[in-house]
This record gives sequence, structure tokens and C-alpha cells, in this order.
Amino acid sequence: MAGSSYGTIFRITTWGESHGKGIGVVVDGCPAGLPLSEEDIQRYLDRRKPGQSRFTTARQEGDQAEILSGVFEGKTTGTPIALEIRNKDQRSQDYGEIMDIYRPGHADYTFDQKYGFRDYRGGGRSSGRETAGRVAAGAVAAKLLESLGVKVRAYTRSIGPVVISPERMDLAERDKNRLYMPDAQAALEAEAYLETLMAEKDSSGGVVECVIEGMPVGIGEPVFEKLDANLAKAILSIGAVKGFEIGSGFQAASMRGSENNDAFCLEEKTPDGGLAFQPRTVKQTNHSGGTLGGMSDGSPIVFRAAFKPTPSIARPQQTVDRFGKEREIVIKGRHDPIIVPRAVVVVEAMAALTAADMLLLSMTSRLDRIRAFFGGDQVG
Amino acid sequence: MAGSSYGTIFRITTWGESHGKGIGVVVDGCPAGLPLSEEDIQRYLDRRKPGQSRFTTARQEGDQAEILSGVFEGKTTGTPIALEIRNKDQRSQDYGEIMDIYRPGHADYTFDQKYGFRDYRGGGRSSGRETAGRVAAGAVAAKLLESLGVKVRAYTRSIGPVVISPERMDLAERDKNRLYMPDAQAALEAEAYLETLMAEKDSSGGVVECVIEGMPVGIGEPVFEKLDANLAKAILSIGAVKGFEIGSGFQAASMRGSENNDAFCLEEKTPDGGLAFQPRTVKQTNHSGGTLGGMSDGSPIVFRAAFKPTPSIARPQQTVDRFGKEREIVIKGRHDPIIVPRAVVVVEAMAALTAADMLLLSMTSRLDRIRAFFGGDQVG
Amino acid sequence: MAGSSYGTIFRITTWGESHGKGIGVVVDGCPAGLPLSEEDIQRYLDRRKPGQSRFTTARQEGDQAEILSGVFEGKTTGTPIALEIRNKDQRSQDYGEIMDIYRPGHADYTFDQKYGFRDYRGGGRSSGRETAGRVAAGAVAAKLLESLGVKVRAYTRSIGPVVISPERMDLAERDKNRLYMPDAQAALEAEAYLETLMAEKDSSGGVVECVIEGMPVGIGEPVFEKLDANLAKAILSIGAVKGFEIGSGFQAASMRGSENNDAFCLEEKTPDGGLAFQPRTVKQTNHSGGTLGGMSDGSPIVFRAAFKPTPSIARPQQTVDRFGKEREIVIKGRHDPIIVPRAVVVVEAMAALTAADMLLLSMTSRLDRIRAFFGGDQVG
Amino acid sequence: MAGSSYGTIFRITTWGESHGKGIGVVVDGCPAGLPLSEEDIQRYLDRRKPGQSRFTTARQEGDQAEILSGVFEGKTTGTPIALEIRNKDQRSQDYGEIMDIYRPGHADYTFDQKYGFRDYRGGGRSSGRETAGRVAAGAVAAKLLESLGVKVRAYTRSIGPVVISPERMDLAERDKNRLYMPDAQAALEAEAYLETLMAEKDSSGGVVECVIEGMPVGIGEPVFEKLDANLAKAILSIGAVKGFEIGSGFQAASMRGSENNDAFCLEEKTPDGGLAFQPRTVKQTNHSGGTLGGMSDGSPIVFRAAFKPTPSIARPQQTVDRFGKEREIVIKGRHDPIIVPRAVVVVEAMAALTAADMLLLSMTSRLDRIRAFFGGDQVG
Repeated sequence: MAGSSYGTIFRITTWGESHGKGIGVVVDGCPAGLPLSEEDIQRYLDRRKPGQSRFTTARQEGDQAEILSGVFEGKTTGTPIALEIRNKDQRSQDYGEIMDIYRPGHADYTFDQKYGFRDYRGGGRSSGRETAGRVAAGAVAAKLLESLGVKVRAYTRSIGPVVISPERMDLAERDKNRLYMPDAQAALEAEAYLETLMAEKDSSGGVVECVIEGMPVGIGEPVFEKLDANLAKAILSIGAVKGFEIGSGFQAASMRGSENNDAFCLEEKTPDGGLAFQPRTVKQTNHSGGTLGGMSDGSPIVFRAAFKPTPSIARPQQTVDRFGKEREIVIKGRHDPIIVPRAVVVVEAMAALTAADMLLLSMTSRLDRIRAFFGGDQVG
Repeated sequence: MAGSSYGTIFRITTWGESHGKGIGVVVDGCPAGLPLSEEDIQRYLDRRKPGQSRFTTARQEGDQAEILSGVFEGKTTGTPIALEIRNKDQRSQDYGEIMDIYRPGHADYTFDQKYGFRDYRGGGRSSGRETAGRVAAGAVAAKLLESLGVKVRAYTRSIGPVVISPERMDLAERDKNRLYMPDAQAALEAEAYLETLMAEKDSSGGVVECVIEGMPVGIGEPVFEKLDANLAKAILSIGAVKGFEIGSGFQAASMRGSENNDAFCLEEKTPDGGLAFQPRTVKQTNHSGGTLGGMSDGSPIVFRAAFKPTPSIARPQQTVDRFGKEREIVIKGRHDPIIVPRAVVVVEAMAALTAADMLLLSMTSRLDRIRAFFGGDQVG
Repeated sequence: MAGSSYGTIFRITTWGESHGKGIGVVVDGCPAGLPLSEEDIQRYLDRRKPGQSRFTTARQEGDQAEILSGVFEGKTTGTPIALEIRNKDQRSQDYGEIMDIYRPGHADYTFDQKYGFRDYRGGGRSSGRETAGRVAAGAVAAKLLESLGVKVRAYTRSIGPVVISPERMDLAERDKNRLYMPDAQAALEAEAYLETLMAEKDSSGGVVECVIEGMPVGIGEPVFEKLDANLAKAILSIGAVKGFEIGSGFQAASMRGSENNDAFCLEEKTPDGGLAFQPRTVKQTNHSGGTLGGMSDGSPIVFRAAFKPTPSIARPQQTVDRFGKEREIVIKGRHDPIIVPRAVVVVEAMAALTAADMLLLSMTSRLDRIRAFFGGDQVG
Repeated sequence: MAGSSYGTIFRITTWGESHGKGIGVVVDGCPAGLPLSEEDIQRYLDRRKPGQSRFTTARQEGDQAEILSGVFEGKTTGTPIALEIRNKDQRSQDYGEIMDIYRPGHADYTFDQKYGFRDYRGGGRSSGRETAGRVAAGAVAAKLLESLGVKVRAYTRSIGPVVISPERMDLAERDKNRLYMPDAQAALEAEAYLETLMAEKDSSGGVVECVIEGMPVGIGEPVFEKLDANLAKAILSIGAVKGFEIGSGFQAASMRGSENNDAFCLEEKTPDGGLAFQPRTVKQTNHSGGTLGGMSDGSPIVFRAAFKPTPSIARPQQTVDRFGKEREIVIKGRHDPIIVPRAVVVVEAMAALTAADMLLLSMTSRLDRIRAFFGGDQVG
């Protein structure tokens, strides 16, 4: 089945394997007239680049995105935008045992069963490298959203047992540490924790949190195409994610209705430079996480993604090979002890893609607005 | 946008509001030759019927499903199966304040903003009643899955602070208590907890767990159409769900790779009545929850859904009306203090619909199997 | 596969067989706020009702449409509109040979091969009766289009050798004769032709022409989702259609570029009651049939559908039964000698559904218009 | 809207403009295990290369396709296949009047209206060059079909008034002349006709015919996803096509039922080297063009596409510019006086893509076959 596309109106199709000729994405359905340059894409890609950090792989990817179509004189034309990152280094190398052995926690076994064989080089299509296409496309979606007043920001919420503190939380701090944590002290603690794990040839999971601000009210469709349902799919489609929650999330299951309900009230809004006050309906709390009935409710949309620990660890592990023999495997090479810091921008990308698509999809809900769009009184 | 359909090959479209003429669903893409009767549907619908329990609404729904098309001489014909439940009682009644006031935790406000007005009778399309169509369709999917050796079962895992115990867990117990808990003692504790809440005019959230057994290996598509990603969307599309996790889920975020990885080993499988032993690749543990790389890995698929507490509570709540005035609301009538027991079959239905669709979608992954399907050596 | 749905934003799903319990359609994605009543639907359905004409079957269908959901206080709510027509008469009857024998020109053989068996009653799902659902949904689409200034009208262009004359063409005449021909004289000639055919136990094909007026410029998507490509699919999805052409159509194949190109010029347009003149770009001719590059070009969209002769004829025909024996069949009962007059409203319905869907889809092509839609200067 | 994708299971997404950096296509959903090389793609691309013919543009395109992903060790892996053709020559050149003036018969005006501006270089996305992506993808689909015993072949049926003769028809001749006509004499006449047109600075339309052989019976879905409906859409999505017909097509409209119905009979089929005879249901004639009720009926599928004359002609034409002024235009440069010969392989590609997709979609119609696919007696 064709499972490499995502979105309905703003629709992306990714391609490429870890060690193939390149990675790419086609962004179809982006409105015409959006200023877009390769720098816009690069800025996003650089955020998933392994840093100088001891916790991300040293291999210098240095991905360079190229725009091949859909942009003319600096603006999107409304036709498909092809983005491509050529792999710099494709030297054939010795893949050794990985060719035949199923690595625990990886998709080797399921790929072999589904397709009869697999591209074993570096994980092939199930490699984290596949997310480069998502991030490149996410950069376009984020730029579109920004031009409509919508902002998407993700950050590391926890690494193993180390959780950011609500009191110390400071988004400006996020880009200052290598773990993308908006809490300097938590970042230090997490670094120490990761050091220990590395010494023990082990790895850690973590949680990414994401906030979408500025969404108009009523985005998302009732029933199957709820905004939160689509966010959940988008996030669970990222390789190592094992859980998704919005607002009070799993905590809601042990809460009472009187605690979890968000009361509505009116907020006085001053228009810029104006004198008149316009009351606006807002929620006093945000346990809903910014959606009610699957539609955005005007509050920030806040969700979390649980990432499992990196499955590639240097300890001996028990497994089976494709010839049906039990084997022991020790995974060689450098591997990140934690996926989360590099996944922050991937979460942001998937959220931006979902928000952009559902925003565009929401334009047809009311006849009065459609009539105004097509020329108001002239029609009908 | 058209958001009332779900699935690609096995595709359903639901319709109907809480207090309209009826509720229904069209199941399109069900293979021909499946024995199907109204009793098959009814058995599922009865499971979401409010029981004699004090914890579910007394209003006797007594939904009766009718098959209007797609079944001939007791078997599905491959053409769309229309299922319909006429509402028995449509007396116009006084909806009082609900017409104008936005109930906290409900979709009243977002519906009004999205569509300009709303069907305020009993929640309209965002009512829990909408799930009757999903359950009716889920009964068809479950029957199809059973004929292919796949079984889907959900149950109540927790209600507020009361969680089932792994030691006492007994699926046979599930249908014996009114809370659908597979643990008799936990059920008693939960009943006591709910009694307290009702006395306090409050409500509780809870967790539903679901297990899919018998799925062949390799079901689900890499990248965007992962099996777990589609399950997440299916589950989050249910009204009150705030979270989804698979396998070790959110716990994985604080685990180590060495704990969370599932080692592979060989299992001796004796064919029925046979002498030969065939080794089969299996996982020694199931932290993955039955998927690797978004594809089923042969272990049971185990996921959980977090439900928020019923938002309709009899306490006074602060809110706003559609005329932009702050108001206090006290929601009248009987309301369940907990959604979870009635939601168990809805989770099962959405899981069955997803599993059936992805199973059918998986048939085109390998050319060798396609060639065999179309006549082996004759072709090519 | 689920092939009973049509459309992306304005999406319909039909169900029902010829002699089952009923026929229906779910219209999902219709914008909220459109006034809609059962009379709106009935008016369309009546047009495909067999008249008193000698050329349409005497069986009185008298279809009565019921709106089951999606309309509240006389207006669409934005949620799915379920339309249903219960079959009045389901007496089991003797289907005799038709159960086992493949009628030439019908889908009996292909249905049996595809599904293993078939609902043989009156053609089951491949019966012309299936179009009732399309027509009911088309009535909704047509009403939506009218409120946006777009009008869709089809008529009989030819029956066998009898073609309407451009000189005598008068749309007001269409509804005055039983053949839906906008040319009184041609209608008389066609009636005489059909009399002859009936005497000879034979049937005739014909051509339906359809005109869509008032479409804004730029509706339709380049490449695969061209407006004309979608119209072609919509029209070829009607049972007996064997050909589709737009504008100069097949004639274009023997024309020269200098003949077929439509020159552009300016047209002075007087706004109602205004003094200023606004020049508008128009085409001097309309060989293109109202589309250029797959997008509407401002001229009326004009296309034609070729219908084959009714395959059910009372003459003996050579065929095969499902047991693999050669047989002779004489089809009993009254059958229309021509499908075309009853198909006119079906063509109109499919054109309206396509136009409505593509109109709504076109709203996201330009960032400037999207920004204006979401609040102009406030955003970004 | 995202209109650059085609297909459901076997799904392609094309990108690229006439004078941009390149043209490409992503083929998603191709089954794993199909041998595929760049030569397979190149062979198809070369067929749309302008020859040394006087009737096709002299500009040497010499497209070189590169496979960037989805193929490993010479076989498809089941993951997306990215195909790319870099444009060799992107010298900026003087586009002169074309920047501002709407060429008659081209999409300049509709593009400007839809998107607010356009990539005016060589027609941008509406250029015939866009079809290179379709052809590259079509090569993959054709290879898949061949491995399943299905063959797709198109040819020029007519050029202006010159039509091939059924008596002289010889498919082997097709590739011997520059017009892809399977009739040597007609090819000579057509060449002479085109010479005259060129002298008169004019162009010609024509008809392409296509035959699909070897399709199993029952491919295509009833109602909206009929095989012929999808072929119609596929063909009308090609730039200059104005009409589509299958089997007797528009001629059926003036035929009688007794002429147009295809009688069924039995055909004795000898299995290779076998002694037993197996009777097979076949049609004695093929007016249906190989489909009944939208499903393949076992006969060859035969359809025709009407192409309009090349709109680019060297005569002065009346038009309007984007500033709302009437202008005269004389289109410079060499232009083919006929599109048809180069479009033959495009028709073949779109037919192959449609056939491959619908073949894969048809695998889920019967429960008995699905049960056999998933392991027969072991399941259920």
C-alpha cells in the first residue's frame, strides 16, 4: 500500500532510505504566494543535525536541502515543491551481521516478513534518517502557519527520570542546551544521567511536549477527522513513539469531572491602539489541551509524545537470524543513547503539517463564509 | 470537510445525531461471502446499552439495528452494507438553557464557532450516541477478523484510582460485572468509588485496555500508515479520549533500552496432530505491544486509552452563553458518572475496524504472493 | 475495495440494491447553513421517475426521499446528511432464468466472477436503480451551487440517429416532452423512431449534453485532478455510458489549431445599476468547452455523454449460464427502449456533485485569499 | 489542493516544471520483489523523446532517468521509488511576450487566475514536459503488469482526417514509423497532411487507441470506481485530451441493442501440453470494449483518446494580456504540428498505472480468496 503520503489538502510524500542516494519529499497543495527559500528549509534540517554533543552520533550528516520545483521568483507557485537531500557518502561498507540478524527493538524482522527481504543498510526505510523528509516539509508548513499567525514549538519535557520543572520552564532556554530542554537545571541533570547510561552501554527514553498557539477556533472535523486524532496519528507515525496524550492526558483518567472541566469566561481584548473592548470567550484552565469535540477551542494546543529508549545498545542481546537460528548480537558503531533531542524538531514538523492541513480543510464549513469568499453579493 | 468516513479498503461512513430520526453507518468494502445477520450486529450494540447499573443512564435505549443492503441470502455481497438504528423517541422536549449556554467540557462552543449554529438537542452529532454507528460497523469488522483468526478484546483497566491487578486479571470475569472489569475485586472497589462520586455530584475518568490476538506478522505500512499510528487515530477519534499508548507506552519514556528491548527467540510449534516441530520467531517479552516499525510483530497488540471524566456533572459550573454573557449552569437529568464501561465496546469496534482495514491493505506488499493469488504459473 | 463513495470535500456514499429494502446516500461535507427540505430532493427524484411515456417502464416507483440527519431547523448543520428511499414493494418474485444466466450487455457475469455470487434480483447493485442515491445527493449539490451562482443543466442531445438542431434548440422546451429534448421537432422524430424499435423488440442509444454556467475561473487542479478529468470519471461511472467529450471533443481530433483555438478578447461588463464599465477577459468561441489546462476558463462548461442502447431486449439472445453451459435467453418484462431520458437528471447530478466538490477544493490555492479568509491583517 | 498524485494502492506523485531544475515522480505502493533497472525506465522515456522527425520539436531532450530509492540489489523493496530527470539546460532565456500574454488554447490565463501568478517559462507545470514523470512511473506499472500477464499497447489511430485501416492494421509496424501508426500507408498519408499544415503554419489533432490484454475478469469496482471511469479520468488528465470512449463509444449512441450487445459463448481452452479441454466463457464480439458494469469482462480493453491540435501555431492570434489589454500574439520557436505521436506512450503509461492500481485493489473482493491468501485452513 502507498503509505508514504500524509495530509489531504497540504499533502506530503516522502522517499528515501538511510544509505541510498538521497532522501526527499514532495509537498503538494501548498498555497501559491508563500515566500520560500532553501534557507527556510535548512534552518529546520539543522535542528535535527547531530550536534557536537556527546549524546548524538558524531557522524556529520550536514544535510543540504535543494528545492527542485514549485518555487518561482522566491515564492511558491501552488504546484508541487520537491525537496531533496542527496546523501554525501554512499561508500559500500561491511554491514556484517546486521544483514542477517534481527536487531531487538528494530523493524528488521517485520520488514523481512512483510516484503520478503529488506534493504539492510542502516535500517533502510525504517531508519531515523527517513524523518529528514518530514522535517523539510514541516519547515514549509511552519512558514505557512506563521503567515497565518500560528506558531508551533516543541521541546524535551523529560529524559528518563529527569523532568523539566514548571517553575523553571523557560522556552528561550531550549535552544541553549544540547538536549532542547527549556530548563537549564534539568538539562544538566539529564546530561549526568545520560553519562551514566553510556558508561553502562545503555540508553534512555523521554517525553517531547509540543504547543501550537494561534489556531482559530473550530479547526478539526467532528467524528473521525478530529484535530487531536490526526495529531495522534502524526505523532505515532514517528519511529520510536509509544504514546500520545493531549491536555490532562492519562492523568484525566484518575481525575474528577469537577477538576478536569475547564470553565468558560470572558476576556477583555483590546484591539491595537483602539479604545473599545471586545469580550472574547476563553477557558479559565486548559485541561482539554486546546480541543473540545475534536476542534480547536482557542486555547493553546498542548500534547506530549512518549519516546522509547534507543534500541541500539552495545550490550550483548539475544535474538534470531533470518535463517531461523538463535544468535547473540552486539550492535557496533556509535549510537545516540537518547533519541529525544533530535526528535524535537520532528514532532514540531508533524504538528505543523497536521495543523496546516486541518486549517486549510476547515475553510468549507460555513456557507456564509464560502459565499463571502467567492464574491459576496455578486453570487446567488 | 467530509470527516465522517474511516478506513481505506474496509471503509465506514457514519451519520446521525443524538435526537434526530436515527443513527446509521454504511460499511463499504467488506469482502463478499461473510455470513452476517442482524443478531451479529445486535450483540455488539447491546454491549453499549445502559444496563441496570446505577452508573449508567436509566434511559432505555434498546437500539435495534436493521440491515438495509449488502447482505443476500445471509451473506455479504461485497457491496455496501447499510445499517440503521431508528430513534424510538423523538418527542420534542424542552432543551432549556442548553440551547444557548456552552457546557464546560462539551463541544457546544466549538460547534457554534465552526458551523455558525448547532443542533443543540442532546449534543447533536458530538453526542456519545454517535458511537452506535461505529459499534454496528465494528461488529462486521470483528466477524470478518474472526473468520481470519484474529480476535479483538477490550476491558476496563482502571476507574479513577482503582486499577485491575495483573494477578487477579481474568477475562472471563469481564462480562460478569457492570463495569466490564476483568477483576472482580477491583470492580467492587470501583463501584464503591463511583457511589462516593455520585453523592458528591461528580464524575470519574478511567482507562480502557485492548488486546488484538492472531494478527499475521507484517500488517501495517512503514512511515505514515503504521498500524499503531492508525490505532492512535482511531482511538483518539472517540469523544472523551485524551491519550493513547501501546506496549510500555509512557512508561517507556523512563525506561532503559536494556529493559525495554524485547529479545527474539525461537518457539517450537506443534502443528495439530502432527509430529514435526516448526521453530517460530517470537519475542520473549512484549514491551513493544505487538508492533515493530509500525508493523505487527506476531505478539498480541496491546494498547490503552485514557478517558476523561464525564463532563456533565450536576454541580454549578461557570460558563458563557452564545450571546457573549457569563452564566452559571447546572446540568440537569441523569448522567453517567463514568463513560468507560460503555466505551469498552467502542474501543473494541475502532480497533477491529482498523485491524480489518490494515489486514486487507497488506495483501499487496509482495509480488510473489500477488502472482500466486492471480494464478501462479499461468501468469507472466 | 470501498468504491461507493465519490468526492473529496463534498463527499457522497451510496448504498442499496434494486430489490432490497431501500436505496440511500450519505452526503458528507456539505457546508452548514444551506436551506434544505425533502421537497428539494423530491423534485430531482421525480425527474428520473418513469413517466406515463410509452418509452419508460410502467412500474410506478414513486420514490419518496426522507432526510434522516444533518438538517436542523430547515438548514444543513455541516454534519452528514442521510437520505433514504425505502422500497415499497419487496414481494419475493420468481427471478427464473436470470438467477443463473448471464444477460448480454449486463454485469451478471462480471459480478459473479468478482464476488463468487450475486444478488440477482433486478440487477442488484448494478441496476439503474442505484442512481437514485446519486440523484438525491445531486439535488443537494445543485442547491449549494445555485446559492453560489452556478447552474447545471443537462438534456437529451440525440436518440439513435435523431439529433437536436442548434437552430431549434430551446431549453424551455426540454421539460415539455417526455424525452427531455430541447427541440420539439426532434422529440417527435425520436418518438417515431422509438416506436419502430419497440415494434422490432429492439432498443436505442443516445447522447446527453450538459452545461455548467457561472463557475468562477480557475476551478479544477492542474495535472491529475483536472476539472474535465473528474467530470469524465463522474460520467463514465454511470452505468451505460461509453464515452465522454468536452467542448469540440472527438471533433477536435480532425480539426486544425487555427480552427480549434479560442481567441481571447475583452468584454465590457456593466455592474448592476452602476456607471463604470469593467473589462473582463472572455473567449470569443468555446471550442475548449469551458476548461483550459484542466481549470474552468469562465466560459460555460459543455460536455457530452454517449449512452449505449438498453441491453435488455425481448429478442432471443445467445449466452452462457453460471454452470458453464451455452443457453438462449429472452428477457421478459417491460424494459425502456432507451435509457437516455431518465439518465438526463443523473448526468446533471454527477456534474453538480463534481462541480461542488471542485469549487470547495479550490479555496486553498492562494495565500492572499486564505489570509483574507482568516481575518486579514490580524494574522501574521 | 494536492492534485499531483494518482492511484490508491499503486500511487504516484509527480513534480516539476518545464524549465525548472528537473522533473520527477515518486512511485509508492509498488510491491516488493519486482526486478527494476534504470534501463526499464529509459526505454519508456525514449519513446516520448522527440525524434529526428520533422513533426516533433528538434530540441534534444535526451532525458536520463535516475532511480534514487526503493530499489535494492536490482529489485523493488516495497518502499517508495523516486525517479528523477534533471533538466540539462536551464539557461535563463528571454521569454518575451509569453510572460504577460495569454496564449490561446493554453493554460496561461487560468493559471494566473487560480494562483495569482505563474511560472511562465515554457508553460511551467502545464507543459507537456510534465508527462515525463507519468511515463517514468508508467514504465514501472507496465513492468509489474507484465509480470502478471497483462500487456498495454497504444498507437496512433488517426491524424486529422487520416485514419488507420482495420485491414492494414499491423502492430509490428507501429514502431517503424515516426507517427506511431500501425499502418504504413496511413502513416505516409498523414506525413503528407502534416507537411501541408506546417506550410500553412497550422497544426492537427488526432486519436490514440489503446488495448489492454490479459486482465483477469472482475477488475474494477462497481459504482464510482469502475475500471472505465478511472481510465477516463486518467486519460482526460493528459493535457490536450478532449474526449474518451471505450468499446463502441460514441457510435453506441446511434446503435441498436441487438447490434451492440455482445453474446456470450464458450471457448475451448487447451492447457499447455495437456489433453483435457476447459470451456471458458467469452464474448463473441467486443462492443463493450472489455468491461461490463465497470469490471473487466475478459475481452481486451479497448479505448480511444481524442487529442486537440497543438495550440502553439505560428499564425497571428487575437488575445489579451495580464494587464487587461487586447493584444496580438505570434508564437515563436519550433512547435510540433501534432501532439499525438509523442502522446502515445503517455496514454500507455496512464493506462498501465490505472490497470496496475485496480488490479491490486481487486484482491479483497472475496472472503474465500482472502482466507486462502492468509493461510487457508490454519485461520478461523
